[in-house]
Amino acid sequence: MKYRVTLAYDGTGYSGWQLQEGWPTIQGVFGEALAKLEGGYVVTHGAGRTDAGVHAEGQVVSFRLSREWEGPILRRALNASLPFEVRVMEAERASEEFHARYDAKGKTYRYRVYQAEVMNPLYVRYAWHYPYALDVERLAEAGQALIGTHDFAAFTVTASDVRTSVRTLTAFGVEREGPDIRFHFSGNGFLRYQVRTMVGALVEATRGRLKAGTVARLLESRDRMLAGAPAPARGLTLMKVEY
Amino acid sequence: MKYRVTLAYDGTGYSGWQLQEGWPTIQGVFGEALAKLEGGYVVTHGAGRTDAGVHAEGQVVSFRLSREWEGPILRRALNASLPFEVRVMEAERASEEFHARYDAKGKTYRYRVYQAEVMNPLYVRYAWHYPYALDVERLAEAGQALIGTHDFAAFTVTASDVRTSVRTLTAFGVEREGPDIRFHFSGNGFLRYQVRTMVGALVEATRGRLKAGTVARLLESRDRMLAGAPAPARGLTLMKVEY
Repeated sequence: MKYRVTLAYDGTGYSGWQLQEGWPTIQGVFGEALAKLEGGYVVTHGAGRTDAGVHAEGQVVSFRLSREWEGPILRRALNASLPFEVRVMEAERASEEFHARYDAKGKTYRYRVYQAEVMNPLYVRYAWHYPYALDVERLAEAGQALIGTHDFAAFTVTASDVRTSVRTLTAFGVEREGPDIRFHFSGNGFLRYQVRTMVGALVEATRGRLKAGTVARLLESRDRMLAGAPAPARGLTLMKVEY
Repeated sequence: MKYRVTLAYDGTGYSGWQLQEGWPTIQGVFGEALAKLEGGYVVTHGAGRTDAGVHAEGQVVSFRLSREWEGPILRRALNASLPFEVRVMEAERASEEFHARYDAKGKTYRYRVYQAEVMNPLYVRYAWHYPYALDVERLAEAGQALIGTHDFAAFTVTASDVRTSVRTLTAFGVEREGPDIRFHFSGNGFLRYQVRTMVGALVEATRGRLKAGTVARLLESRDRMLAGAPAPARGLTLMKVEY
């Protein structure tokens, strides 16, 4: 029987979603919890392969179990054996064809920046500490150039196993509550490091190191070397997957 | 020379503010950082003696150093040797008579409750997981009875070294953003466990286990046994100290 769960996790101590022998991964600990119920290895598919240190509030995972489980009971059984940094928020039966990764139609990520001279220790696990002034209106304006369907080659790693780097960004927004700045990106899919590289480039562009129109020119260039370093993993959270 | 610093800390791994031989405490690690600069032990006074697991965004500490330091340089020197969970947000010279604890005129605490069936791992260090429905309007109404000058004996521990349990609560508020509920308490001073016990009692009263008017009756009773358990330490943060 096919199941679908929504996972939330604090990625701080983990080497990302994807199973890696000898490293603590979310797929690894989730697989162990499933193996206890199933009495054997269970193949899992995650909607987003979050990198080391990246968090999730709405990762979606699909898998098969031989027994029939009611959603709330499956959720409780899994949470009872998962570490507290990883929680099943929802669990339900899915159609036999459901595949969390291939069926995903859209994803939303949040990126948090904490802008202050000294980093607040209550934000250090979940936000990039940025000590220089940032103008949220200019950030919002600069980000408009990214909305739409573009070749995002400039915002990913060069060696990539994907066929095309064309993606559609459907929504972009940024809001500020004192020192806490939150970016939101929604799209049909994202390349590796794409969100973090876009945040890094927007922040640099806004600081005035890069000239006006930079973001549009970066897109056109398709040159990974121009966009600068991706923002740190700790600020990124996979919020929602749409089907 | 007398100095005054504002500290922020994630209290999760610490046995509270106050120095305790053999336990990790905020006063302990802060004292070690000061000792490196001074070349010897430095007596420190914290405005609030936060308990084990309690956080701070605005703890104030006073101490003397033999050398003259400019505020920003002292701040940087201390942050360079403090663990990342403890940060000096501001540092400045203070008058020779300044005492962070005795001179405090008021304090503000925040208490966070995360109200959802399953706890979100991104909130677990900083909020009390409460799985049952909560009505924020009723919480706000029930809390009004606490505002003003009262004997808060019912909301503290019985064995207390303080002369009087009369305190003045100057402001109380509660706000909700989805599952994230935040209480704010301001007053001239707080008894040990007072904020956490008030939150515990308000939440229980709102759930309807305790009858209407309960909070006022608890105050009048001065009986510690009636108020129930204090809410967990992890939800509490010392936000601000006024002088």
